[in-house]
Amino acid sequence: MSEATLTFPEADARKLEPHLPPKPSSTTAAAASGTREDADPPPPPPQRPFVTLTYATSLDSALALAPGTRTALSGPQSKAMTHYLRSRHAAICVGVGTALADNPGLNCRIAPSASDDGNGQPRQPRPIVIDPHQRWAFTDQSKVLQLARADRGLAPYILIAVAGPEPPAERRQLLEELGGKYICLGDSSSFVMEWRDILRAVRNEGLDSIMVEGGGQVISSLLGAPNAELIDSVIITVAPTWLGAGSVFVSPARRLDSEGKPMSAGRLVDTAWIPLGEDVVLCGKIAKTSS
Amino acid sequence: MSEATLTFPEADARKLEPHLPPKPSSTTAAAASGTREDADPPPPPPQRPFVTLTYATSLDSALALAPGTRTALSGPQSKAMTHYLRSRHAAICVGVGTALADNPGLNCRIAPSASDDGNGQPRQPRPIVIDPHQRWAFTDQSKVLQLARADRGLAPYILIAVAGPEPPAERRQLLEELGGKYICLGDSSSFVMEWRDILRAVRNEGLDSIMVEGGGQVISSLLGAPNAELIDSVIITVAPTWLGAGSVFVSPARRLDSEGKPMSAGRLVDTAWIPLGEDVVLCGKIAKTSS
Repeated sequence: MSEATLTFPEADARKLEPHLPPKPSSTTAAAASGTREDADPPPPPPQRPFVTLTYATSLDSALALAPGTRTALSGPQSKAMTHYLRSRHAAICVGVGTALADNPGLNCRIAPSASDDGNGQPRQPRPIVIDPHQRWAFTDQSKVLQLARADRGLAPYILIAVAGPEPPAERRQLLEELGGKYICLGDSSSFVMEWRDILRAVRNEGLDSIMVEGGGQVISSLLGAPNAELIDSVIITVAPTWLGAGSVFVSPARRLDSEGKPMSAGRLVDTAWIPLGEDVVLCGKIAKTSS
Repeated sequence: MSEATLTFPEADARKLEPHLPPKPSSTTAAAASGTREDADPPPPPPQRPFVTLTYATSLDSALALAPGTRTALSGPQSKAMTHYLRSRHAAICVGVGTALADNPGLNCRIAPSASDDGNGQPRQPRPIVIDPHQRWAFTDQSKVLQLARADRGLAPYILIAVAGPEPPAERRQLLEELGGKYICLGDSSSFVMEWRDILRAVRNEGLDSIMVEGGGQVISSLLGAPNAELIDSVIITVAPTWLGAGSVFVSPARRLDSEGKPMSAGRLVDTAWIPLGEDVVLCGKIAKTSS
């Protein structure tokens, strides 16, 4: 619980800026001070939040050596970048596999900067856990809940399927007393969650940006057609390693052209490659899929 | 056959220089002119050539959409780089799968520079095709042989297994009249070719550097332990695309630590990430595997 605060260099942050959601207009700080000098005009209410897909991968497109294994891939600079990105999003999203495998904190440990709300703390993102089958048997010892209790992170919103049973009362109580909750999605006949529904639910909670972090299934499914068009920005850290056969790979579903032949599953445009320590950070936007 | 000459910018070439074999000492030109001004002291005779592993990959570590499919992955700058790299190696190596799938030229079309041997032509690398089972039924219409006949490339050396039959006489004749040949490797009981034997055979032909280009099986096998230690330099082009599930992926074999747990299959050190058009070129050396 006593992990160090991280620092992300401003020069690197400036390079990422074109690939990030607009900075929050600091409603809390502005309301407190009575000024809103740097407030942008409010954007029209969208049907979904700004979506950033971000992950760290090996050269062989692997996230981890095995399912349920946490693998240190990228260097310390990349870790600081991840926490900086978290500070710039209202929500972060992981699949239940990651919650089970990593016992993740899902908070932000970046050193606060002048753009923060002035209480010396970074803005904390809301963890969103996709868990249609309620596989995540969290307790008050789970890291994300401990951090929420210590006021160093937010309690998660857990997306479960309408088709499933009621969650256990004591678990719901634990979640809600820390500010988290269950959100039911879908219909009574299926446990499949559509990305459009997930993102609409997130937006309905007042969360205007979300960073999708993992794991492999979540990333591959968001990258696959037709979901990829929901992504506003992609930020991938590539580490100069190979994890090897049998690892947890990222690869979107195959796409076929009008003649039934395989075609590229997706492409980034407006790309920037930013060396960061031994790694490289690739930023870009998903190309339109009309071709 | 009338493909254009390619140009690779000198500024990019300089960035690659630390990752390339020593420049050839221009024996032919020097012998012709009677001077050897820029000749380095001759290196001690090694057991193998300088080995550069190079390939172009998607973000999901794919080389091609499907086996037997040639997929344009990287941009025009990367293509020029490949031909520049070919000009800097005595040999280029592909597996038979690539020879069958791509009907490749395996020659060098880079514009000659001041460092070339003065006849206005780039140095041509010797194609090495790994084909233990003699699956490659080339003819005089195969591109690599057409280029050799037109003096715009060299005829291949084809590595076949001792365990196999004699190659057909007419095919051997076609190969040899253009300066190519069959080289038998291995023993009478197996079609498996070891990389050490392949590289020793290449060196025995007086070829002091080799660039291993593909395809997926060849690359993955060279990257796997214990072969990776034979690699002197790695130059990978990463294109900002995903090819998707079912593609031809590169991933070395799994490695296990002393307790039998999976560990990283390999890592690059002394890395440089060089943006090149929309792509990035990663150069590095394979880390020692003592850890």
